Amino acid sequence: MTTEQLIAEIKKKKSFLCIGLDVDLNKIPQYLLKEDDPIFAFNKAIIDATHHLCVAYKPNTAFYEAYGIKGWQALEKTIKYLNKNHPEIFTIADAKRGDIGNTSTMYAKAFFEDLGFDSVTVAPYMGKDSVEPFLTFEDKHTILLALTSNQGAFDFQTKTVDGIELYKQVLKTSKSWQNSENLMYVVGATKAEYLADIRQIIPNSFLLVPGVGAQGGNLQEVCKYGMNKNIGLLINSSRGIIYASNDNNFAKAAANKALELQQQMAELI
Amino acid sequence: MTTEQLIAEIKKKKSFLCIGLDVDLNKIPQYLLKEDDPIFAFNKAIIDATHHLCVAYKPNTAFYEAYGIKGWQALEKTIKYLNKNHPEIFTIADAKRGDIGNTSTMYAKAFFEDLGFDSVTVAPYMGKDSVEPFLTFEDKHTILLALTSNQGAFDFQTKTVDGIELYKQVLKTSKSWQNSENLMYVVGATKAEYLADIRQIIPNSFLLVPGVGAQGGNLQEVCKYGMNKNIGLLINSSRGIIYASNDNNFAKAAANKALELQQQMAELI
Repeated sequence: MTTEQLIAEIKKKKSFLCIGLDVDLNKIPQYLLKEDDPIFAFNKAIIDATHHLCVAYKPNTAFYEAYGIKGWQALEKTIKYLNKNHPEIFTIADAKRGDIGNTSTMYAKAFFEDLGFDSVTVAPYMGKDSVEPFLTFEDKHTILLALTSNQGAFDFQTKTVDGIELYKQVLKTSKSWQNSENLMYVVGATKAEYLADIRQIIPNSFLLVPGVGAQGGNLQEVCKYGMNKNIGLLINSSRGIIYASNDNNFAKAAANKALELQQQMAELI
Repeated sequence: MTTEQLIAEIKKKKSFLCIGLDVDLNKIPQYLLKEDDPIFAFNKAIIDATHHLCVAYKPNTAFYEAYGIKGWQALEKTIKYLNKNHPEIFTIADAKRGDIGNTSTMYAKAFFEDLGFDSVTVAPYMGKDSVEPFLTFEDKHTILLALTSNQGAFDFQTKTVDGIELYKQVLKTSKSWQNSENLMYVVGATKAEYLADIRQIIPNSFLLVPGVGAQGGNLQEVCKYGMNKNIGLLINSSRGIIYASNDNNFAKAAANKALELQQQMAELI
């Protein structure tokens, strides 16, 4: 998917909502466990109920890997279902990968070609040659971790390196990488006030913003400091939407939560 | 596996060799492609030929993910084969994972419980709460990226943070994390002279050292600066061993390369 297609979809739906598909079998309605593939059954119900309210879905691969082969089958079914029925929706493999060059190429192939995701999240610690292999794929996007939403972000990301914080160093340095126009960045909503500084460095890039809801981030604050002329934001909510209820009408409850966020977003666009 | 068991195995075999099982279907003997599971067939042949010469195997998960479900099945078969036939051998899932707390817990379960690896490599960028979930598993080890063997290591890892390089900051900080005795560290062999400084900070920890061979690192140099009283090193070689030949006798050729390294190691112990 091109960035222009994503922007068009955001404007059409008046939404920049991303729904995180982090399926934990202990948290889904227990009657689904009778299904052949409970994870996919859950995802399908969530997607069917919410696709008109969001512009992106983000399965976190950890939740699928934890269930072994069955988990990977569920992930594959989910992305194929999305690509077939909702090709206009941006898909994010939240995998936080990154390795030496030839290995990053294998990861890029896995997520972009084999599974067919539009984007993948990547960790910056190993530098340029660990990220550039992802950037060579046309109309695919690499979402680099900059400032994450967890407490551990303060261990290294906010430490000062050559006069500026490490996460800003990551933003600045990454702009010089080949095909850097295919970069987006993860910036946690729990640190919304940092967004003004971030926009000084990367005014035009899309930001994937986790941490609204369960982790305490504030939508208005994020938009105030982070929105640009193309919106430039994908706000992720996972647990707050998909686990809104765990009885028979979980999908309807999820849609209600998604609608609430979409309506707030429509006012902010 | 406990650290003591690993040390005993190193002393018994006079080897601290780790063999990287990074299987690329374009590089293996082409007659294996007729097998039901060519990746596992290749790994099994390599393991059968080399297990007496090495103390660890390290599949890089990227190479398996790139082949989708079949790749994950091959990975699962490989680790189960190792655990059944060679439980004395240390196994490393080279996955370079790391995410917010509840997600890291899912990854830890995937690699330690579902697959049954002894250890997993983890990226430090997201800090303490992204790593500690891995450290809670008894007799399992978390191998934290410190200084990697690629050129991109100089983008961020060697930059100065609060007076010392970021990778040293990672080493120092990680020592204060809960169950930090379960930590090992990745330190690239291409930067052997850095090992003296590293040993000042973490004198007792095991180091996983990639980059000997294909990437140009030197075994003697690594041992000179990095060895401690318990050896404290796992030297990885992947391509240099497993692709020593790609004809019918590839396993024998791999064993010869492994023997060469093991003999050099025996002299250095």
